[in-house]
Amino acid sequence: MTKFAPMPEPPYYAVIFANQASADLSGYDVMAEAMVAQASSQPGFLGIDSTRAGDGFGITISYWKDETSIRNWRDNLGHMAAQKLGMERWYDHYTLRIAKVERQYEGPEGRSARQ
Amino acid sequence: MTKFAPMPEPPYYAVIFANQASADLSGYDVMAEAMVAQASSQPGFLGIDSTRAGDGFGITISYWKDETSIRNWRDNLGHMAAQKLGMERWYDHYTLRIAKVERQYEGPEGRSARQ
Repeated sequence: MTKFAPMPEPPYYAVIFANQASADLSGYDVMAEAMVAQASSQPGFLGIDSTRAGDGFGITISYWKDETSIRNWRDNLGHMAAQKLGMERWYDHYTLRIAKVERQYEGPEGRSARQ
Repeated sequence: MTKFAPMPEPPYYAVIFANQASADLSGYDVMAEAMVAQASSQPGFLGIDSTRAGDGFGITISYWKDETSIRNWRDNLGHMAAQKLGMERWYDHYTLRIAKVERQYEGPEGRSARQ
């Protein structure tokens, strides 16, 4: 289950990034890996859930302690450079939402015990 | 861009469902389609972003007007039946987070104009 982001006690923040990959993904893998490594080293980073279908539609959610952590990450220079390159070249379209996680559950282990 | 959920004015709510599909997905497609159709007909439903990679790791985010809409959806009988069946059979593991969307952006169209 290490694939799933950890679930610290709410409230905390989620950055919900939905995106359609473009036809030109040259350099994407290297930069994506570097960005995840960089995010992971930022104060307040809590985890990441990420997946992409064969048609190029991807969703990446990064979790953060608070809004300050998100702002600091955004202002990070390396991240900005990746943003400028990536947003124009790698994505046909994307949406980005900042949301405050208020409640959470997991399963199905122990599910019947909670009902 | 119809693939992306619409972006109404925040605040609104996101139900973030990350899941690892199990080996036994018999009946999954039919039920998943029915659940999306059912959610779409619920008051307060705003849209859905969903994707799944070849390894079975999926993320589905449904967006809702408020917490009451989410509660009503959850309490819907058909949805509950699907939950009970699905959570045990179709998913090896899942996480579910309820989050309040506070800010949002989209791009890359018009990105430079906003900087």
